[in-house]
Amino acid sequence: MDAGRVLVDGEPGGRVAALDRGLAFGDGVFRTLRVSGGRPLNWSRHYERLRADCALLALDAPPEALLLGELSRVAPAEAVAKIIVTRGAGGRGYSLPSGIATTRIVAAFDPPLHPRERATEGVTARRCAWVLSQQPRLAGAKTLNRLENVLARAEWDDPEIAEGLLGDAGGRVIEGTMSNLFVVKAGVATTPSLDRCGVAGAQRARVIDLLTTRGVRTEVRDLSWDEVADADEVFLTNSLIGVWPVTALEDVRYAVGAIARMAQRAIEEDDAAV
Amino acid sequence: MDAGRVLVDGEPGGRVAALDRGLAFGDGVFRTLRVSGGRPLNWSRHYERLRADCALLALDAPPEALLLGELSRVAPAEAVAKIIVTRGAGGRGYSLPSGIATTRIVAAFDPPLHPRERATEGVTARRCAWVLSQQPRLAGAKTLNRLENVLARAEWDDPEIAEGLLGDAGGRVIEGTMSNLFVVKAGVATTPSLDRCGVAGAQRARVIDLLTTRGVRTEVRDLSWDEVADADEVFLTNSLIGVWPVTALEDVRYAVGAIARMAQRAIEEDDAAV
Repeated sequence: MDAGRVLVDGEPGGRVAALDRGLAFGDGVFRTLRVSGGRPLNWSRHYERLRADCALLALDAPPEALLLGELSRVAPAEAVAKIIVTRGAGGRGYSLPSGIATTRIVAAFDPPLHPRERATEGVTARRCAWVLSQQPRLAGAKTLNRLENVLARAEWDDPEIAEGLLGDAGGRVIEGTMSNLFVVKAGVATTPSLDRCGVAGAQRARVIDLLTTRGVRTEVRDLSWDEVADADEVFLTNSLIGVWPVTALEDVRYAVGAIARMAQRAIEEDDAAV
Repeated sequence: MDAGRVLVDGEPGGRVAALDRGLAFGDGVFRTLRVSGGRPLNWSRHYERLRADCALLALDAPPEALLLGELSRVAPAEAVAKIIVTRGAGGRGYSLPSGIATTRIVAAFDPPLHPRERATEGVTARRCAWVLSQQPRLAGAKTLNRLENVLARAEWDDPEIAEGLLGDAGGRVIEGTMSNLFVVKAGVATTPSLDRCGVAGAQRARVIDLLTTRGVRTEVRDLSWDEVADADEVFLTNSLIGVWPVTALEDVRYAVGAIARMAQRAIEEDDAAV
Protein backbone atom coordinates (compact mmCIF):
# COMPACT_ATOMS: atom_id res chain seq x y z
CA MET A 1 0.00 0.00 0.00
CA ASP A 2 1.21 3.47 -0.88
CA ALA A 3 1.68 5.29 2.43
CA GLY A 4 0.94 8.55 0.62
CA ARG A 5 -2.64 7.43 0.28
CA VAL A 6 -3.25 7.19 4.00
CA LEU A 7 -3.76 10.26 6.15
CA VAL A 8 -3.65 9.92 9.92
CA ASP A 9 -5.14 13.03 11.50
CA GLY A 10 -4.43 14.78 8.24
CA GLU A 11 -0.77 13.80 8.03
CA PRO A 12 0.68 11.45 5.44
CA GLY A 13 2.83 8.54 6.53
CA GLY A 14 0.22 6.00 7.37
CA ARG A 15 1.35 5.06 10.88
CA VAL A 16 -0.48 5.15 14.21
CA ALA A 17 0.59 4.56 17.80
CA ALA A 18 0.94 0.83 18.38
CA LEU A 19 -1.27 1.14 21.44
CA ASP A 20 -3.99 3.23 19.85
CA ARG A 21 -7.24 2.08 21.41
CA GLY A 22 -8.52 1.26 17.97
CA LEU A 23 -5.97 -1.55 17.87
CA ALA A 24 -5.91 -2.42 21.56
CA PHE A 25 -9.68 -2.84 21.91
CA GLY A 26 -11.33 -2.24 18.54
CA ASP A 27 -12.54 0.98 20.17
CA GLY A 28 -13.71 2.83 17.09
CA VAL A 29 -15.86 2.82 13.96
CA PHE A 30 -15.34 2.89 10.20
CA ARG A 31 -16.87 3.28 6.77
CA THR A 32 -15.87 1.84 3.42
CA LEU A 33 -17.11 3.68 0.37
CA ARG A 34 -16.56 4.17 -3.31
CA VAL A 35 -15.16 7.27 -4.93
CA SER A 36 -16.07 7.76 -8.59
CA GLY A 37 -15.56 10.77 -10.81
CA GLY A 38 -13.78 12.26 -7.83
CA ARG A 39 -16.91 12.14 -5.64
CA PRO A 40 -17.58 9.85 -2.67
CA LEU A 41 -20.76 8.03 -3.64
CA ASN A 42 -23.80 7.91 -1.36
CA TRP A 43 -21.88 10.28 0.90
CA SER A 44 -24.72 11.74 2.92
CA ARG A 45 -25.81 8.31 4.14
CA HIS A 46 -22.23 7.31 4.89
CA TYR A 47 -21.62 10.42 6.92
CA GLU A 48 -24.93 10.05 8.72
CA ARG A 49 -24.05 6.47 9.71
CA LEU A 50 -20.53 7.46 10.74
CA ARG A 51 -21.91 10.21 12.95
CA ALA A 52 -24.49 7.86 14.49
CA ASP A 53 -21.89 5.16 15.16
CA CYS A 54 -19.53 7.72 16.72
CA ALA A 55 -22.37 8.93 18.94
CA LEU A 56 -23.08 5.36 20.05
CA LEU A 57 -19.48 5.07 21.26
CA ALA A 58 -19.38 8.64 22.60
CA LEU A 59 -16.71 9.58 20.07
CA ASP A 60 -16.47 13.00 18.47
CA ALA A 61 -17.31 12.58 14.79
CA PRO A 62 -14.92 14.43 12.47
CA PRO A 63 -16.55 17.38 10.72
CA GLU A 64 -17.97 16.50 7.33
CA ALA A 65 -15.95 19.14 5.47
CA LEU A 66 -12.71 17.86 7.02
CA LEU A 67 -13.40 14.31 5.85
CA LEU A 68 -14.38 15.43 2.36
CA GLY A 69 -11.19 17.48 2.12
CA GLU A 70 -9.04 14.56 3.22
CA LEU A 71 -10.83 12.17 0.87
CA SER A 72 -10.07 14.51 -2.01
CA ARG A 73 -6.39 14.58 -0.98
CA VAL A 74 -5.90 10.81 -0.86
CA ALA A 75 -8.34 9.39 -3.36
CA PRO A 76 -7.85 9.47 -7.12
CA ALA A 77 -10.95 9.93 -9.27
CA GLU A 78 -11.77 6.22 -9.04
CA ALA A 79 -11.02 4.59 -5.69
CA VAL A 80 -12.19 2.67 -2.70
CA ALA A 81 -11.96 4.84 0.40
CA LYS A 82 -11.93 3.90 4.04
CA ILE A 83 -12.56 6.21 6.98
CA ILE A 84 -11.72 5.07 10.51
CA VAL A 85 -12.31 6.97 13.74
CA THR A 86 -10.81 5.51 16.92
CA ARG A 87 -10.87 6.59 20.56
CA GLY A 88 -7.21 7.58 20.14
CA ALA A 89 -4.00 6.73 21.90
CA GLY A 90 -3.82 6.91 25.66
CA GLY A 91 -4.42 4.94 28.81
CA ARG A 92 -3.86 1.24 29.19
CA GLY A 93 -6.96 -0.37 30.60
CA TYR A 94 -10.59 -0.27 29.53
CA SER A 95 -11.38 2.98 31.37
CA LEU A 96 -11.84 5.88 29.01
CA PRO A 97 -8.87 8.20 29.49
CA SER A 98 -9.66 11.87 29.77
CA GLY A 99 -8.24 14.43 27.43
CA ILE A 100 -7.22 12.21 24.54
CA ALA A 101 -8.15 13.02 20.97
CA THR A 102 -9.65 10.59 18.52
CA THR A 103 -7.49 9.17 15.75
CA ARG A 104 -8.80 9.81 12.24
CA ILE A 105 -7.64 7.63 9.37
CA VAL A 106 -8.60 8.39 5.77
CA ALA A 107 -7.24 5.97 3.18
CA ALA A 108 -7.68 5.20 -0.48
CA PHE A 109 -7.21 1.95 -2.38
CA ASP A 110 -7.34 1.04 -6.03
CA PRO A 111 -10.86 0.20 -7.09
CA PRO A 112 -10.61 -3.59 -7.26
CA LEU A 113 -13.34 -3.90 -7.87
CA HIS A 114 -15.12 -7.11 -8.58
CA PRO A 115 -15.90 -8.66 -11.98
CA ARG A 116 -18.72 -6.73 -13.61
CA GLU A 117 -20.48 -10.02 -14.38
CA ARG A 118 -21.27 -10.46 -10.73
CA ALA A 119 -23.73 -7.59 -11.02
CA THR A 120 -25.06 -8.54 -14.43
CA GLU A 121 -25.19 -12.33 -14.22
CA GLY A 122 -25.39 -12.90 -10.48
CA VAL A 123 -23.28 -14.74 -7.94
CA THR A 124 -23.06 -17.94 -5.98
CA ALA A 125 -23.35 -17.55 -2.21
CA ARG A 126 -23.02 -20.02 0.62
CA ARG A 127 -24.40 -20.34 4.11
CA CYS A 128 -21.68 -19.84 6.72
CA ALA A 129 -21.32 -22.19 9.67
CA TRP A 130 -20.37 -19.17 11.79
CA VAL A 131 -23.29 -17.93 13.92
CA LEU A 132 -23.30 -14.22 14.75
CA SER A 133 -23.38 -13.15 18.38
CA GLN A 134 -26.22 -10.89 19.49
CA GLN A 135 -25.52 -7.52 21.05
CA PRO A 136 -28.48 -5.14 20.75
CA ARG A 137 -26.43 -2.25 22.12
CA LEU A 138 -24.02 -2.39 19.17
CA ALA A 139 -26.24 -3.93 16.50
CA GLY A 140 -26.19 -2.08 13.20
CA ALA A 141 -23.02 -0.16 14.03
CA LYS A 142 -19.87 -0.58 11.96
CA THR A 143 -17.40 -0.85 14.82
CA LEU A 144 -13.80 -2.04 14.62
CA ASN A 145 -14.83 -5.29 16.38
CA ARG A 146 -15.13 -7.29 13.18
CA LEU A 147 -13.42 -10.54 14.07
CA GLU A 148 -16.63 -12.46 13.46
CA ASN A 149 -16.72 -11.25 9.87
CA VAL A 150 -13.05 -12.16 9.39
CA LEU A 151 -13.51 -15.69 10.72
CA ALA A 152 -16.73 -16.26 8.81
CA ARG A 153 -15.04 -15.11 5.59
CA ALA A 154 -12.18 -17.52 6.32
CA GLU A 155 -14.55 -20.49 6.02
CA TRP A 156 -14.12 -20.71 2.24
CA ASP A 157 -11.57 -19.85 -0.39
CA ASP A 158 -13.33 -20.99 -3.54
CA PRO A 159 -13.21 -17.85 -5.73
CA GLU A 160 -16.45 -18.94 -7.38
CA ILE A 161 -18.28 -18.29 -4.12
CA ALA A 162 -18.76 -14.56 -3.91
CA GLU A 163 -20.27 -14.22 -0.45
CA GLY A 164 -21.31 -16.12 2.66
CA LEU A 165 -24.56 -15.53 4.51
CA LEU A 166 -24.68 -15.34 8.27
CA GLY A 167 -27.45 -16.01 10.73
CA ASP A 168 -27.88 -15.71 14.48
CA ALA A 169 -28.50 -18.33 17.14
CA GLY A 170 -32.24 -17.66 16.87
CA GLY A 171 -32.37 -19.10 13.36
CA ARG A 172 -32.63 -15.69 11.72
CA VAL A 173 -30.72 -14.71 8.60
CA ILE A 174 -28.89 -11.45 9.17
CA GLU A 175 -26.44 -10.43 6.45
CA GLY A 176 -23.48 -11.42 4.32
CA THR A 177 -19.94 -11.27 5.66
CA MET A 178 -19.42 -7.97 3.79
CA SER A 179 -22.89 -7.15 2.51
CA ASN A 180 -26.52 -6.73 3.40
CA LEU A 181 -29.19 -9.08 2.17
CA PHE A 182 -32.53 -8.50 0.46
CA VAL A 183 -35.08 -11.09 -0.54
CA VAL A 184 -38.08 -10.52 -2.76
CA LYS A 185 -41.30 -12.52 -2.51
CA ALA A 186 -44.50 -11.62 -4.32
CA GLY A 187 -43.10 -8.20 -5.15
CA VAL A 188 -42.20 -7.28 -1.55
CA ALA A 189 -38.51 -6.57 -0.85
CA THR A 190 -37.45 -7.59 2.66
CA THR A 191 -34.14 -7.01 4.40
CA PRO A 192 -33.37 -8.45 7.84
CA SER A 193 -33.84 -6.43 10.99
CA LEU A 194 -30.46 -5.49 12.46
CA ASP A 195 -31.69 -4.94 16.00
CA ARG A 196 -29.61 -7.77 17.50
CA CYS A 197 -26.56 -8.05 15.25
CA GLY A 198 -25.29 -7.11 11.84
CA VAL A 199 -24.04 -3.95 10.19
CA ALA A 200 -26.48 -1.45 8.71
CA GLY A 201 -24.79 -0.54 5.43
CA ALA A 202 -25.25 2.81 3.75
CA GLN A 203 -26.10 1.00 0.52
CA ARG A 204 -28.81 -0.96 2.31
CA ALA A 205 -30.34 2.30 3.53
CA ARG A 206 -30.19 3.74 0.01
CA VAL A 207 -31.73 0.67 -1.62
CA ILE A 208 -34.60 0.75 0.86
CA ASP A 209 -35.16 4.43 0.04
CA LEU A 210 -34.83 4.06 -3.72
CA LEU A 211 -37.08 1.02 -3.99
CA THR A 212 -39.71 2.64 -1.79
CA THR A 213 -39.62 5.79 -3.92
CA ARG A 214 -40.21 3.63 -6.97
CA GLY A 215 -43.30 2.05 -5.49
CA VAL A 216 -41.82 -1.23 -4.23
CA ARG A 217 -43.06 -2.29 -0.82
CA THR A 218 -40.04 -2.80 1.46
CA GLU A 219 -39.98 -4.44 4.85
CA VAL A 220 -37.35 -4.59 7.57
CA ARG A 221 -38.06 -7.56 9.81
CA ASP A 222 -36.76 -10.88 11.08
CA LEU A 223 -36.20 -13.32 8.25
CA SER A 224 -35.83 -17.11 8.36
CA TRP A 225 -33.58 -19.33 6.26
CA ASP A 226 -36.71 -20.95 4.85
CA GLU A 227 -37.90 -17.58 3.60
CA VAL A 228 -34.60 -17.06 1.84
CA ALA A 229 -34.84 -20.49 0.22
CA ASP A 230 -38.40 -19.74 -0.86
CA ALA A 231 -37.74 -16.23 -2.22
CA ASP A 232 -38.36 -15.18 -5.81
CA GLU A 233 -35.20 -13.06 -5.76
CA VAL A 234 -32.23 -12.74 -3.46
CA PHE A 235 -29.66 -9.98 -3.74
CA LEU A 236 -26.75 -8.50 -1.83
CA THR A 237 -25.79 -4.86 -1.40
CA ASN A 238 -22.79 -2.90 -0.28
CA SER A 239 -21.09 0.31 -1.25
CA LEU A 240 -18.46 -1.34 -3.41
CA ILE A 241 -20.45 -4.05 -5.14
CA GLY A 242 -23.67 -2.12 -5.62
CA VAL A 243 -26.22 -4.90 -6.05
CA TRP A 244 -25.30 -8.52 -6.71
CA PRO A 245 -28.19 -10.82 -7.57
CA VAL A 246 -27.73 -14.24 -5.95
CA THR A 247 -28.34 -17.00 -8.46
CA ALA A 248 -27.22 -19.90 -6.28
CA LEU A 249 -27.27 -20.41 -2.52
CA GLU A 250 -26.32 -23.92 -1.45
CA ASP A 251 -28.75 -26.12 -3.43
CA VAL A 252 -31.27 -23.40 -4.31
CA ARG A 253 -31.20 -21.55 -7.65
CA TYR A 254 -32.70 -18.13 -8.34
CA ALA A 255 -33.18 -16.06 -11.48
CA VAL A 256 -31.80 -12.54 -11.65
CA GLY A 257 -34.94 -10.62 -10.81
CA ALA A 258 -36.66 -7.39 -11.73
CA ILE A 259 -36.28 -5.79 -8.30
CA ALA A 260 -32.52 -6.37 -8.27
CA ARG A 261 -32.33 -4.78 -11.73
CA MET A 262 -34.46 -1.88 -10.56
CA ALA A 263 -32.16 -1.35 -7.57
CA GLN A 264 -29.08 -1.38 -9.81
CA ARG A 265 -30.55 1.21 -12.17
CA ALA A 266 -31.76 3.35 -9.29
CA ILE A 267 -28.27 3.39 -7.73
CA GLU A 268 -26.72 4.36 -11.06
CA GLU A 269 -29.19 7.22 -11.42
CA ASP A 270 -28.66 8.33 -7.85
CA ASP A 271 -24.87 8.29 -8.30
CA ALA A 272 -25.18 10.29 -11.52
CA ALA A 273 -27.32 12.98 -9.90
CA VAL A 274 -25.26 15.69 -8.22
CA MET B 1 3.92 6.94 26.88
CA ASP B 2 7.62 6.50 26.26
CA ALA B 3 7.92 5.17 22.70
CA GLY B 4 11.15 3.42 23.73
CA ARG B 5 9.10 1.06 25.81
CA VAL B 6 7.15 -0.29 22.88
CA LEU B 7 8.66 -2.73 20.42
CA VAL B 8 6.86 -3.44 17.17
CA ASP B 9 8.29 -6.60 15.61
CA GLY B 10 11.34 -5.99 17.74
CA GLU B 11 11.91 -2.40 16.63
CA PRO B 12 11.51 0.61 18.91
CA GLY B 13 9.38 3.53 17.79
CA GLY B 14 5.97 2.36 18.80
CA ARG B 15 4.14 2.82 15.50
CA VAL B 16 2.21 0.40 13.33
CA ALA B 17 0.61 0.67 9.91
CA ALA B 18 -2.65 2.59 10.22
CA LEU B 19 -4.43 -0.18 8.36
CA ASP B 20 -2.98 -3.07 10.35
CA ARG B 21 -5.73 -5.66 10.60
CA GLY B 22 -5.47 -5.45 14.37
CA LEU B 23 -6.87 -1.95 14.12
CA ALA B 24 -9.10 -2.42 11.09
CA PHE B 25 -10.93 -5.47 12.45
CA GLY B 26 -9.62 -6.28 15.92
CA ASP B 27 -8.03 -9.26 14.17
CA GLY B 28 -5.60 -10.34 16.88
CA VAL B 29 -5.09 -11.33 20.50
CA PHE B 30 -3.30 -9.96 23.55
CA ARG B 31 -2.09 -10.57 27.08
CA THR B 32 -1.57 -8.18 29.97
CA LEU B 33 0.80 -9.33 32.69
CA ARG B 34 2.92 -8.16 35.53
CA VAL B 35 6.69 -8.05 35.57
CA SER B 36 8.30 -8.11 39.02
CA GLY B 37 11.91 -8.54 39.98
CA GLY B 38 12.56 -8.53 36.25
CA ARG B 39 10.45 -11.66 35.69
CA PRO B 40 7.07 -11.89 33.94
CA LEU B 41 4.82 -13.43 36.57
CA ASN B 42 2.71 -16.50 35.86
CA TRP B 43 4.43 -16.62 32.49
CA SER B 44 3.82 -20.22 31.54
CA ARG B 45 0.05 -19.80 31.81
CA HIS B 46 0.18 -16.50 29.91
CA TYR B 47 2.17 -18.00 27.09
CA GLU B 48 -0.05 -21.07 26.99
CA ARG B 49 -3.15 -18.87 26.67
CA LEU B 50 -1.51 -16.66 24.06
CA ARG B 51 -0.61 -19.70 21.99
CA ALA B 52 -4.12 -21.14 22.32
CA ASP B 53 -5.73 -17.83 21.35
CA CYS B 54 -3.40 -17.48 18.36
CA ALA B 55 -4.31 -21.00 17.27
CA LEU B 56 -8.01 -20.17 17.52
CA LEU B 57 -7.49 -17.33 15.05
CA ALA B 58 -5.00 -19.30 12.92
CA LEU B 59 -2.22 -16.84 13.79
CA ASP B 60 1.38 -17.88 14.21
CA ALA B 61 2.26 -17.44 17.88
CA PRO B 62 5.61 -15.73 18.44
CA PRO B 63 8.24 -18.08 19.89
CA GLU B 64 8.39 -17.96 23.66
CA ALA B 65 12.09 -17.04 23.78
CA LEU B 66 11.53 -14.13 21.40
CA LEU B 67 8.79 -12.70 23.61
CA LEU B 68 10.82 -13.17 26.78
CA GLY B 69 13.75 -11.40 25.16
CA GLU B 70 11.62 -8.48 24.07
CA LEU B 71 9.95 -8.24 27.47
CA SER B 72 13.37 -7.98 29.07
CA ARG B 73 14.30 -5.20 26.63
CA VAL B 74 11.27 -2.99 27.29
CA ALA B 75 10.24 -3.73 30.84
CA PRO B 76 12.02 -2.39 33.91
CA ALA B 77 12.20 -4.66 36.96
CA GLU B 78 8.70 -3.65 38.05
CA ALA B 79 6.22 -3.10 35.22
CA VAL B 80 2.96 -3.92 33.58
CA ALA B 81 3.57 -5.56 30.22
CA LYS B 82 1.31 -6.02 27.27
CA ILE B 83 1.81 -8.39 24.36
CA ILE B 84 -0.30 -8.04 21.22
CA VAL B 85 -0.26 -10.28 18.15
CA THR B 86 -2.26 -9.14 15.13
CA ARG B 87 -2.87 -10.66 11.71
CA GLY B 88 -0.59 -7.96 10.30
CA ALA B 89 -0.89 -5.28 7.65
CA GLY B 90 -2.23 -6.18 4.25
CA GLY B 91 -5.38 -6.53 2.24
CA ARG B 92 -8.46 -4.40 2.63
CA GLY B 93 -11.50 -6.59 3.11
CA TYR B 94 -12.25 -9.41 5.52
CA SER B 95 -10.56 -12.10 3.40
CA LEU B 96 -7.31 -13.28 4.90
CA PRO B 97 -4.52 -12.01 2.67
CA SER B 98 -1.82 -14.52 1.81
CA GLY B 99 1.80 -13.95 2.60
CA ILE B 100 1.49 -11.29 5.28
CA ALA B 101 3.32 -11.54 8.58
CA THR B 102 1.75 -11.02 11.96
CA THR B 103 2.46 -7.80 13.85
CA ARG B 104 3.98 -8.33 17.30
CA ILE B 105 3.76 -5.55 19.89
CA VAL B 106 5.53 -5.81 23.23
CA ALA B 107 5.04 -2.84 25.55
CA ALA B 108 5.77 -1.90 29.15
CA PHE B 109 3.98 0.54 31.44
CA ASP B 110 4.68 1.81 34.91
CA PRO B 111 3.17 -0.47 37.51
CA PRO B 112 0.16 1.61 38.57
CA LEU B 113 -0.84 -0.44 40.27
CA HIS B 114 -3.86 -0.20 42.47
CA PRO B 115 -4.03 0.77 46.14
CA ARG B 116 -2.73 -2.11 48.24
CA GLU B 117 -5.80 -1.82 50.50
CA ARG B 118 -7.94 -3.21 47.73
CA ALA B 119 -6.28 -6.57 48.26
CA THR B 120 -6.15 -6.34 52.04
CA GLU B 121 -9.47 -4.70 52.88
CA GLY B 122 -11.56 -5.56 49.84
CA VAL B 123 -13.40 -3.56 47.22
CA THR B 124 -16.82 -2.34 46.23
CA ALA B 125 -18.16 -3.72 42.97
CA ARG B 126 -21.27 -2.99 40.97
CA ARG B 127 -23.47 -4.89 38.57
CA CYS B 128 -23.17 -3.52 35.05
CA ALA B 129 -26.22 -2.83 32.91
CA TRP B 130 -24.25 -4.04 29.90
CA VAL B 131 -25.12 -7.62 28.93
CA LEU B 132 -22.34 -9.63 27.26
CA SER B 133 -22.98 -11.13 23.85
CA GLN B 134 -22.53 -14.87 23.47
CA GLN B 135 -20.10 -16.30 20.94
CA PRO B 136 -19.03 -19.85 21.84
CA ARG B 137 -16.43 -19.88 19.04
CA LEU B 138 -14.48 -17.02 20.68
CA ALA B 139 -15.47 -17.47 24.32
CA GLY B 140 -12.53 -17.46 26.70
CA ALA B 141 -10.14 -15.93 24.18
CA LYS B 142 -8.54 -12.55 24.78
CA THR B 143 -9.06 -11.10 21.33
CA LEU B 144 -8.71 -7.46 20.32
CA ASN B 145 -12.51 -7.23 20.04
CA ARG B 146 -13.00 -5.67 23.48
CA LEU B 147 -15.48 -2.91 22.81
CA GLU B 148 -17.97 -4.53 25.17
CA ASN B 149 -15.50 -4.26 28.04
CA VAL B 150 -14.78 -0.63 27.18
CA LEU B 151 -18.44 0.33 27.11
CA ALA B 152 -19.28 -1.60 30.26
CA ARG B 153 -16.39 0.09 32.09
CA ALA B 154 -17.71 3.46 30.89
CA GLU B 155 -20.91 2.95 32.89
CA TRP B 156 -19.40 4.38 36.06
CA ASP B 157 -16.67 6.79 37.09
CA ASP B 158 -16.96 6.66 40.88
CA PRO B 159 -13.37 5.83 41.93
CA GLU B 160 -14.76 4.04 45.00
CA ILE B 161 -16.19 1.37 42.72
CA ALA B 162 -13.32 -0.89 41.78
CA GLU B 163 -15.01 -3.18 39.31
CA GLY B 164 -18.25 -3.93 37.49
CA LEU B 165 -19.65 -7.43 37.06
CA LEU B 166 -21.10 -8.59 33.78
CA GLY B 167 -23.66 -11.21 32.95
CA ASP B 168 -25.09 -12.68 29.77
CA ALA B 169 -28.61 -12.64 28.37
CA GLY B 170 -29.27 -16.02 29.98
CA GLY B 171 -29.07 -14.55 33.48
CA ARG B 172 -25.62 -15.99 34.15
CA VAL B 173 -22.83 -14.05 35.83
CA ILE B 174 -19.68 -14.22 33.72
CA GLU B 175 -16.85 -11.94 34.83
CA GLY B 176 -15.76 -8.44 35.74
CA THR B 177 -14.92 -5.87 33.05
CA MET B 178 -11.19 -6.55 33.63
CA SER B 179 -11.20 -9.53 35.98
CA ASN B 180 -12.51 -13.01 36.59
CA LEU B 181 -14.92 -13.82 39.38
CA PHE B 182 -14.89 -16.46 42.10
CA VAL B 183 -17.56 -17.10 44.69
CA VAL B 184 -17.22 -19.33 47.72
CA LYS B 185 -20.14 -21.15 49.32
CA ALA B 186 -19.76 -23.79 52.01
CA GLY B 187 -16.06 -24.03 51.28
CA VAL B 188 -16.44 -24.65 47.53
CA ALA B 189 -14.85 -22.07 45.22
CA THR B 190 -16.77 -21.60 41.97
CA THR B 191 -15.84 -19.53 38.94
CA PRO B 192 -18.20 -19.08 35.99
CA SER B 193 -17.97 -21.24 32.91
CA LEU B 194 -16.59 -19.22 30.00
CA ASP B 195 -18.03 -21.42 27.25
CA ARG B 196 -20.29 -18.72 25.80
CA CYS B 197 -18.53 -15.45 26.58
CA GLY B 198 -15.88 -13.94 28.81
CA VAL B 199 -12.11 -14.00 28.92
CA ALA B 200 -10.24 -16.86 30.59
CA GLY B 201 -7.54 -15.04 32.52
CA ALA B 202 -4.19 -16.59 33.31
CA GLN B 203 -4.68 -15.62 36.95
CA ARG B 204 -8.03 -17.41 37.02
CA ALA B 205 -6.33 -20.58 35.76
CA ARG B 206 -3.63 -20.23 38.37
CA VAL B 207 -6.06 -19.64 41.23
CA ILE B 208 -8.03 -22.73 40.24
CA ASP B 209 -4.80 -24.75 40.24
CA LEU B 210 -3.44 -23.32 43.48
CA LEU B 211 -6.67 -23.70 45.42
CA THR B 212 -7.14 -27.23 44.17
CA THR B 213 -3.59 -28.12 45.20
CA ARG B 214 -4.37 -26.79 48.66
CA GLY B 215 -7.39 -29.03 49.03
CA VAL B 216 -10.13 -26.55 48.15
CA ARG B 217 -12.84 -27.96 45.96
CA THR B 218 -13.17 -25.75 42.86
CA GLU B 219 -15.93 -25.79 40.29
CA VAL B 220 -16.25 -24.19 36.87
CA ARG B 221 -19.92 -23.96 35.96
CA ASP B 222 -22.78 -21.58 35.18
CA LEU B 223 -23.46 -19.23 38.04
CA SER B 224 -26.56 -17.12 38.76
CA TRP B 225 -26.75 -13.64 40.24
CA ASP B 226 -28.65 -15.13 43.17
CA GLU B 227 -25.72 -17.43 43.91
CA VAL B 228 -23.38 -14.44 43.94
CA ALA B 229 -25.66 -12.60 46.35
CA ASP B 230 -25.87 -15.68 48.55
CA ALA B 231 -22.13 -16.43 48.58
CA ASP B 232 -19.96 -16.54 51.69
CA GLU B 233 -17.10 -14.93 49.80
CA VAL B 234 -16.73 -13.17 46.48
CA PHE B 235 -13.40 -12.27 44.96
CA LEU B 236 -11.90 -11.01 41.71
CA THR B 237 -8.69 -12.06 40.00
CA ASN B 238 -6.45 -10.78 37.27
CA SER B 239 -2.74 -10.63 36.61
CA LEU B 240 -2.31 -7.07 37.84
CA ILE B 241 -4.59 -7.00 40.88
CA GLY B 242 -3.89 -10.49 42.14
CA VAL B 243 -6.96 -11.21 44.26
CA TRP B 244 -9.41 -8.54 45.38
CA PRO B 245 -11.99 -9.65 47.91
CA VAL B 246 -15.37 -8.04 47.19
CA THR B 247 -16.88 -6.58 50.36
CA ALA B 248 -19.82 -4.81 48.73
CA LEU B 249 -21.80 -5.58 45.59
CA GLU B 250 -24.86 -3.39 45.17
CA ASP B 251 -26.75 -3.85 48.46
CA VAL B 252 -24.99 -7.04 49.58
CA ARG B 253 -22.03 -7.03 51.98
CA TYR B 254 -19.40 -9.73 52.34
CA ALA B 255 -16.54 -10.34 54.73
CA VAL B 256 -13.02 -10.82 53.42
CA GLY B 257 -12.87 -14.59 53.49
CA ALA B 258 -10.39 -17.35 54.18
CA ILE B 259 -10.32 -18.67 50.60
CA ALA B 260 -9.50 -15.24 49.17
CA ARG B 261 -6.67 -14.96 51.70
CA MET B 262 -5.47 -18.42 50.83
CA ALA B 263 -5.45 -17.53 47.13
CA GLN B 264 -3.47 -14.34 47.82
CA ARG B 265 -0.84 -16.21 49.82
CA ALA B 266 -0.66 -18.99 47.26
CA ILE B 267 -0.03 -16.48 44.46
CA GLU B 268 2.71 -14.81 46.48
CA GLU B 269 4.38 -18.14 47.06
CA ASP B 270 4.02 -19.12 43.43
CA ASP B 271 5.51 -15.81 42.27
CA ALA B 272 8.41 -16.21 44.70
CA ALA B 273 9.25 -19.71 43.48
CA VAL B 274 11.57 -19.69 40.49
